[in-house]
Amino acid sequence: MDHLSRLKKFERTLIDHDLDGFVVTHPANLRYLCGYTGSNGLLLLLAGRRVFFTDGRYIQQAREEVQGARLVIAKGPLLNDAAKLIGKLSSAAVGFEADYTTVAAAEQMRKLVHRKIDWKPATGLIMRQRMIKDAEELRIITNAVKLGAGVYKEALKVIRPGVRESEVAGRLEYAARQAGADGMSFETIVAAGKRAALPHGRASGQPIPGRGFVVVDSGVILRGYCSDMTRTVHMGRVSRERRRWYEAVLEAQLAGLAAVAPGKTAAEVDQAARQVLRNAGLDRYFTHSTGHGVGLEIHEPPRLAKLQTERLEPGMVITIEPGIYVPGKGGIRIEDMVVVTGGGSQVLTPVTKELVEI
Amino acid sequence: MDHLSRLKKFERTLIDHDLDGFVVTHPANLRYLCGYTGSNGLLLLLAGRRVFFTDGRYIQQAREEVQGARLVIAKGPLLNDAAKLIGKLSSAAVGFEADYTTVAAAEQMRKLVHRKIDWKPATGLIMRQRMIKDAEELRIITNAVKLGAGVYKEALKVIRPGVRESEVAGRLEYAARQAGADGMSFETIVAAGKRAALPHGRASGQPIPGRGFVVVDSGVILRGYCSDMTRTVHMGRVSRERRRWYEAVLEAQLAGLAAVAPGKTAAEVDQAARQVLRNAGLDRYFTHSTGHGVGLEIHEPPRLAKLQTERLEPGMVITIEPGIYVPGKGGIRIEDMVVVTGGGSQVLTPVTKELVEI
Repeated sequence: MDHLSRLKKFERTLIDHDLDGFVVTHPANLRYLCGYTGSNGLLLLLAGRRVFFTDGRYIQQAREEVQGARLVIAKGPLLNDAAKLIGKLSSAAVGFEADYTTVAAAEQMRKLVHRKIDWKPATGLIMRQRMIKDAEELRIITNAVKLGAGVYKEALKVIRPGVRESEVAGRLEYAARQAGADGMSFETIVAAGKRAALPHGRASGQPIPGRGFVVVDSGVILRGYCSDMTRTVHMGRVSRERRRWYEAVLEAQLAGLAAVAPGKTAAEVDQAARQVLRNAGLDRYFTHSTGHGVGLEIHEPPRLAKLQTERLEPGMVITIEPGIYVPGKGGIRIEDMVVVTGGGSQVLTPVTKELVEI
Repeated sequence: MDHLSRLKKFERTLIDHDLDGFVVTHPANLRYLCGYTGSNGLLLLLAGRRVFFTDGRYIQQAREEVQGARLVIAKGPLLNDAAKLIGKLSSAAVGFEADYTTVAAAEQMRKLVHRKIDWKPATGLIMRQRMIKDAEELRIITNAVKLGAGVYKEALKVIRPGVRESEVAGRLEYAARQAGADGMSFETIVAAGKRAALPHGRASGQPIPGRGFVVVDSGVILRGYCSDMTRTVHMGRVSRERRRWYEAVLEAQLAGLAAVAPGKTAAEVDQAARQVLRNAGLDRYFTHSTGHGVGLEIHEPPRLAKLQTERLEPGMVITIEPGIYVPGKGGIRIEDMVVVTGGGSQVLTPVTKELVEI
């Protein structure tokens, strides 16, 4: 990873925002900017200097990982050491991640430095840079999606009536480990029968019934990057009504994918998928947004929902995942990951979306 | 779970702090107070009323889970709907979780209500209540620890030279799923050979060498509650020096356990363990604190470290986990979970701590 280029690009952003410095503590931002993967770290960018603070647990790891910054092992809270450096300046405007820093931490920050240090809450500065993936990130994400698709296929082999949802999730997660995943990008969803009507139905101890939909939504982490995919299968022969539901969701998903292109707004893509379900009289069951960005975190901007004016740009990686949830009956969701390209888009998820009956 | 009693107890705390209301959004606090397990929710306590807000994805789940509060499905950001209710009061002091609310969210909160609504940042009010576990919580935690111990023993069966660390972690996690765990309470650590010198060495693709220590630190989630345990085994015959290291860490761990009792400070327990390693000339390798509280979250107060004046109380559940990390050579950590009782303490982790050679 070319962390130095990322750091330099972000430092140019700081200049554009009239900031003399910036404090980074959000783990995904630390990993993005300087390669650190531990749970406790603080990167201070200050007037051309870059200092990375961590605690004694991470000495060896930080030495191996941190790129582009001098390493300091702090004895106490990292912020205290960072504040000492900042406080040496006679005055400065120092930004911090307002969307990750808690009110309690910000209060602490204010107390630690003198009054000529102006803490500037900043939102989304690093995320805006992270939103556009570089070539190496796209390569890793593509591999993560392939890995995620492979383990879904493993899980599919064990889905049969009477098998517990958690057993399916367990097989999937074990296959992910064996295939070299760092871990799962979120709690695996296996929601069968009536539970399929829960959009976020984490795998439970419930046995899979002989009839009905089974929603499997899972993702892996590979070298820090997340995958995310959903497929819905049907236990037993599907009724005519439920096939119609499935086909409507699939058509909505394809319409969403077709709408993805540079310059389109997030709301337009959402609308493209939503309109199909509206035409089918099913939009009242589509209770969430059409998708979201994916990268070092499972949920990143842009958010593909109503009123979102963000325009798609080449290098963005997003999900397209419409679904319907009919209380007491079940639910369907179909989700691919897709990269916005110069000419339009490219679907990354290599798994059939034809209805599978088991 | 007796959520109503918890809500009422917390409402008494609000009165003690001169608060007319409180906004809860931190997932573990929501689960604790009203049973909700989804990812997006807001509990508003306001002048004797209790309203729970969530979004369309969680309608069915919230109906099944939320105790003691009226349910509202919000169309947009939950805070907007909550602010409308709060804004109806002519004036009020409304607390919020300063240790979980971001600066950006707090700024949003301020904008949404009129000037006679006084937002009061509050730290640790719910955590203080959560720190003392009730009988049902202790029962679940005990079962979680047992489950975690069982899956560690499964993992132990596959540890041998050449097996990848991630394979060991995968077996452990799969066994946890099969045994009915909701999931893992943190990323499983399997750190073998030189990697054992990384206190937080997440399982990697590295094969386990024929000689050296292997640190396995893992935890499960059962009905929302976390377990946490670490054992260190040795590949091949252990040298005299390394056996001395192991015995020192074990002695430190036993000294930490022996120090646990109501009225003791967190620092005293830390000191009891640390002194043993100091006497053995190994304290410079003990680079973290002696332990932490465990409950709905894997890291809760109290923190057992230097200068921590918090006093132990019956019902607290903590870890005791000294370790040493010798760069380039390896490391050892031994960790149990223990509950503070009226008369002293009770170790929950039912796994031998004698050195196992594989």
